[in-house]
Amino acid sequence: MFTVAESDPKLSKEQAEPLEAKLRTELLKAQYARLQKAQRALLIVIAGIDGAGTGASVSLINEWMDARFIRTMAFDEATPEEKRYPPLWRYWQPLPALGRTGIVFGSWYQPLLREAAKKKPNPDAIQNLAQGIREFESMLANNGIQIVKLWHHLSRKAQKKRTDELLAHRETAWQVHPGEIKVRKKFARLRSAAELSINLTQADFAPWQIIPSADPDMRAVATGQAILTALRQKPSSVGSNSARDNENSKAARSHATAGAKIPPRIEKLDYTARLDSKEYEAQLGYWQARLAELTRRDKFKDRSLILVFEGQDAAGKGGAIRRVAHAFDARQYRIHPIAAPSDIEIAHPYLWRFWRSVPAPGKIAVFDRSWYGRVLVERVEKYAAPQDWRRAYAEINQFEAQLTNNGAVLVKFWLAITRAEQLKRFHEREASPFKSFKITPEDWRNRKKWTAYLQAADEMLARTDTTWAPWHALSSNDKRHARVAVLEHTVKALEKALDTRKN
Amino acid sequence: MFTVAESDPKLSKEQAEPLEAKLRTELLKAQYARLQKAQRALLIVIAGIDGAGTGASVSLINEWMDARFIRTMAFDEATPEEKRYPPLWRYWQPLPALGRTGIVFGSWYQPLLREAAKKKPNPDAIQNLAQGIREFESMLANNGIQIVKLWHHLSRKAQKKRTDELLAHRETAWQVHPGEIKVRKKFARLRSAAELSINLTQADFAPWQIIPSADPDMRAVATGQAILTALRQKPSSVGSNSARDNENSKAARSHATAGAKIPPRIEKLDYTARLDSKEYEAQLGYWQARLAELTRRDKFKDRSLILVFEGQDAAGKGGAIRRVAHAFDARQYRIHPIAAPSDIEIAHPYLWRFWRSVPAPGKIAVFDRSWYGRVLVERVEKYAAPQDWRRAYAEINQFEAQLTNNGAVLVKFWLAITRAEQLKRFHEREASPFKSFKITPEDWRNRKKWTAYLQAADEMLARTDTTWAPWHALSSNDKRHARVAVLEHTVKALEKALDTRKN
Repeated sequence: MFTVAESDPKLSKEQAEPLEAKLRTELLKAQYARLQKAQRALLIVIAGIDGAGTGASVSLINEWMDARFIRTMAFDEATPEEKRYPPLWRYWQPLPALGRTGIVFGSWYQPLLREAAKKKPNPDAIQNLAQGIREFESMLANNGIQIVKLWHHLSRKAQKKRTDELLAHRETAWQVHPGEIKVRKKFARLRSAAELSINLTQADFAPWQIIPSADPDMRAVATGQAILTALRQKPSSVGSNSARDNENSKAARSHATAGAKIPPRIEKLDYTARLDSKEYEAQLGYWQARLAELTRRDKFKDRSLILVFEGQDAAGKGGAIRRVAHAFDARQYRIHPIAAPSDIEIAHPYLWRFWRSVPAPGKIAVFDRSWYGRVLVERVEKYAAPQDWRRAYAEINQFEAQLTNNGAVLVKFWLAITRAEQLKRFHEREASPFKSFKITPEDWRNRKKWTAYLQAADEMLARTDTTWAPWHALSSNDKRHARVAVLEHTVKALEKALDTRKN
Repeated sequence: MFTVAESDPKLSKEQAEPLEAKLRTELLKAQYARLQKAQRALLIVIAGIDGAGTGASVSLINEWMDARFIRTMAFDEATPEEKRYPPLWRYWQPLPALGRTGIVFGSWYQPLLREAAKKKPNPDAIQNLAQGIREFESMLANNGIQIVKLWHHLSRKAQKKRTDELLAHRETAWQVHPGEIKVRKKFARLRSAAELSINLTQADFAPWQIIPSADPDMRAVATGQAILTALRQKPSSVGSNSARDNENSKAARSHATAGAKIPPRIEKLDYTARLDSKEYEAQLGYWQARLAELTRRDKFKDRSLILVFEGQDAAGKGGAIRRVAHAFDARQYRIHPIAAPSDIEIAHPYLWRFWRSVPAPGKIAVFDRSWYGRVLVERVEKYAAPQDWRRAYAEINQFEAQLTNNGAVLVKFWLAITRAEQLKRFHEREASPFKSFKITPEDWRNRKKWTAYLQAADEMLARTDTTWAPWHALSSNDKRHARVAVLEHTVKALEKALDTRKN
C-alpha cells in the first residue's frame, strides 16, 4: 500500500511549477462550479503518519482554493464539554453545506489509529471503531457529502530527515511535534496501524488515497490532484456509491416486500379509552409529581431525556407536551417545534439539524415532530426519493442508538385519532378565535391523504420500534387519556433507566 | 414600588375568563403582525421573588401565543464551559431574530440580585453589575431587540400561603424550590434587593413592570396585558428609546464636531518602508518561531488571541493572515472570512455573529474583515443609518472591553496601500488565472469611493484605538514589510499579556 510513497518520489522545481499553476487554476474553476450547482459538499479528511506535513496540506488547500468557501474543521482532544455528547456529535456540528468544502484535521480516525497502534491492540475495539466510521461516512455520502481521504506517507528515513532538518534551526524547530520524534522508534508499528485502519475503512463512497509526502512539491501536487479529481466527479458516478445505494434500497425493498404486510397498528388501537375529568386530574398530578422527582434526581445528571411526538394533525401533541413539560424545571428542557427545514438546513444531511439539538446530560429535549418527517411527510409528499426515505429507517435507528448508547433515554409517541375525530377538531379550531391559527389549508390537504400518511406511519412504527428507542402508539381521541398515558410511559422509561444503569 | 402587588389583588373566575379569552386572541394577532413585519424582536425577561410563579408565566406565554415562534431562553448556573467566555456570551447566542420572541428566565439579573441580597452587599459591585446590564440592554434595544421586564411580586403572607399549599400535597410539593421556603425568613432583604436592582436598571428602552402574583388569574392577565402592550408598541415610540438615540447620536455628533479634524493617519504613513527578500525570510522565520512558542505556552491556555484585519481592497490581508496562521497549530485557530451578512445574521444585532465566533481560552480567532464593517462599508454604502454607525464606536469599544476583560488579547491591523499601488495590484490580479477570482466589479466600484472609505477608516482609527484593543496602521505597499510588522506586533502584544498577567 505504501510502496510508492516510501520510495519518496520528488518533483524538480521545473516540473512542479507549471503543474502547480495549472492545478490552482483548475481547482478554483472546479470549486466555483461546485458552489454554483450546490448539489454536494466535499469533505477532505487529512491524515497521515506524524511528521509527513499534514498541516502544510491544510494550509495549501486554503491557499490554492478560495478560502472563503472552505471550513477547516480541526479537532483536538475532545473537551470535557464535548465528551458529554455522543462521540460523533462534534463532527456533525461544522459539516459543510452543499457546494462548500470542509477540511477535517484530527478526525474521527484518531481513536481507531490510536487503538491500532497499541502494542496489544484490542481486535474487537478495532472492528467496532471501524464499523462506526463506515456507518458515519456512508450516511454522509448518501446524504450529499462527498468524502475523500488523504493519507500522507513517506519512508522512515525521509521522516527522520525532515524532522531533523526542522529541528536544526530555532526558526523551524517548533514545527516538530513531540510525537513526530517518537515516530522513528515505532515507525513499523504506526505503519501497520495505518495499513489496517485504511483497509478497514476503504470504501468506494469514501476512498483513501496515499499522498507521497517526502518532497513538499510532490505532496502539494498529489494533494491538489486528488482534490481536483474529487471535485470533478459527477454525483451519479461517485464511485459505486450509486451501486451501494441500489444495494441498500434493494435490501430495503426486499425487506419491505418480505414484510409487505406491515401490521396496521394505528387503526387497530382502542379508540374508546377515556378518562373522566376527576380521574384525569388525580392521575395527571400523580404522574407529574413522579416525573418531577425523577428528573430532579442526582442520577439524572448523567443521563438525558429525549421525547419525540408525532401523530395526525390535531391529535393533541401540543397539549400533551405542555402537560409533560409542566413537570420539568424551565432551565432543564427545551421544546423543539419542527417545521419545514430552513435553507441552511436543506443544504445539510437531514439529521444535521437534530444533531444540533441533542441535549447535554441532565437536560431534556422535546420534539414536536422530529426526524421522522423523513419517512412521513417527505415520503408522502415525495420530497425525498424512495431510496432516500427507505434508507432512512436504518439511518434513524443508528442515530438513536448513538444517543441512547451515550445515556439518553429516548421515548417516542404516536398520538392517534380517528378520521371523524380529526374533522370535529378541525371545525372546532376554525371556530375558536385563538385556535384558528392552528388550522391551515395544508391541514385540509394532508387530511385528503389520510391513508397514505397512515401507511407511512405504520411502516415507520414497524421499522423503527427498537428496544433502545421504543414507540408508543396511543389513542388520543380522548386527550385526557393520551396525556396521562404519555406521562406514564415517560415515567416508566426513566425509572427503568435510572434504576438499572450502574453509575 | 410593590404597594399594589403586595395588596395581593385577585380576579374572580367570572372576571378572568372573558379577559383571558380576549387577551389570547389579541396576543396571537399582535404576534403574527410582528412576525410579518419582522422589524423588531421582543425579549421578555421574567424575574421575581422566589415562589411568585415565574415558571407558570413562562408556560402561560408559550400556551397563549404561538409557541413555534417563541424561544424560551432558560439559564441555569453557568457551566464550566460557559464560564470560560465573557459573562454575557451565553445570552448572546440564542437571541431571537427580528419578528420573533424570546422569554428569558434566569437572566443576566441573577448576579445583581444575588449581590444586592447579601447581608453586606458591595456597592461598587452592584454599580458595576447594573452598569453592565444597562449597556447590554441599551445595545440590544438600539439594535432591533425590544425588551420588556416583568417582576413577579406578592406579599410575604401570600408567598408563604402559596408555598405552604403546594407543599401540603405530594402532587404539587415538587413545584416548590428549596429557595422558596427560605424566602420567608429574609423576605424584607430580598424585597429591598429587588427594589434596588429594579431602580438601577429601570429604563425607557427596557422598562420593568410589576406583576401582582398572589392570584394565578391576576398574574396571567397582568402578564398577558404587559406583553400585548409591548407587542403593540410602534418602533418609533419605543419609550424614549428614540430620544435616547437622538441623545446618543447628538453626543456622537458633537464629539464628531469637536474632533471634526480627524487626523489623517492612514495617508500619513510612510509608504516607502521595504524589506528585501533575504531580510524578509530571516525576519519571517524569527517572528513565526517566537509566535509559535508563545501560543504553545501553558499560560496561553487561560488567554485567547483575536486578530482583526482590515484594509483597502488588495492590501494583502489574506497573505498576511497566512503568514501569521503558519505559526499556529491547526487545531488552535480559526479564520473567519467576513462577507455580507446572511439572512439570519441580518435579522440580529450586527455584533451577534461575532459573539458566535468568540474563541474559547487557549484558542485563536483571525478575522479577515470584522465588526468594523459597521463603520466602514455600512457607513460608506449607507446600509446603516448615521445614528447607527455613530453609536457603533462606543458599542464596539464595549464589546472589545468585554473580550479583553475576559483574558483575550485583541490586536487590530489596518493594512494600507496607496491608490496607485491598488491600481497596479488590481491589474495584476486580473491577469493571473488563479487570482482573477479575487477581483470583482465591486472592487472597482469601491475604488471610486477611495476618499470616503479613507475618511471612515481614519475616524474608526481615531475612535476605537483603545488601550485594551489597539490599532496598528501599517503600510502594505511592500507586502514583506507589512507581514513582518504584523507578526512583530502580534508577538509583542502576546508577550506583554503573558508576562504581566498574574495567573
